[in-house]
Amino acid sequence: MKHRFEVIVSLRPGLLDPQGKAVEGSLPAMGWTNVSSVRVGKHIELEVDADSQEDAVSQVDEIARRLLSNPVIENYRIVSMAPVERLTFEERR
Amino acid sequence: MKHRFEVIVSLRPGLLDPQGKAVEGSLPAMGWTNVSSVRVGKHIELEVDADSQEDAVSQVDEIARRLLSNPVIENYRIVSMAPVERLTFEERR
Repeated sequence: MKHRFEVIVSLRPGLLDPQGKAVEGSLPAMGWTNVSSVRVGKHIELEVDADSQEDAVSQVDEIARRLLSNPVIENYRIVSMAPVERLTFEERR
Repeated sequence: MKHRFEVIVSLRPGLLDPQGKAVEGSLPAMGWTNVSSVRVGKHIELEVDADSQEDAVSQVDEIARRLLSNPVIENYRIVSMAPVERLTFEERR
C-alpha cells in the first residue's frame, strides 16, 4: 500500500541562511517592511510502498536522514499526508 | 502582532522535476526500490507583523505570488503556524 509523505528540510536555527536573507532584502523595495525571520528550506514529497504506516514512516525517516538532509547543518521533519488536507505532524529533532 | 507562516512552493503537476528525478534515481542504489513520485520544492518560513491574521495572510499570499513562486510553473500553499505543532491549512490554487 502506498503512503504519501512530505519531508521539510530546513537549516538549523542560528546558521546563516543566504537565500532567506536575499528574500528578506528584496521585500522592502516591494513595499513590505513588516516581514522578518525569512528562512528558506526544501520541501520533498514522496510515496512509499510499505505494509504499514509505521514501516513507511521509519523508511522515510532513514531516507530523510541519509539522502535528503545534511544532519550537520539541517533539521528535517516528516509530515504524513492523510487524505483531504488533514495533516499529522511528526517532529524530528 | 507577529504572525508566523510557512509557504510551500512546488512545481505544477505534470512538469518535469529534475531534482525529484535525481533523488528517485539515487534511491535504488541505497536499497529502496519502493519509493516513487518524488517531487522537490521550496519551503519558506516567515514572520509578518500585521494587525490581524486575515491581513497577514493576504500579505503572505501576495508575497508568495510575486516573489517566492513563479506562477507559470509553480503552485504555492500557505500554512499558518499556530502554536504547538497544530497547523491550519489554506490551500491556494
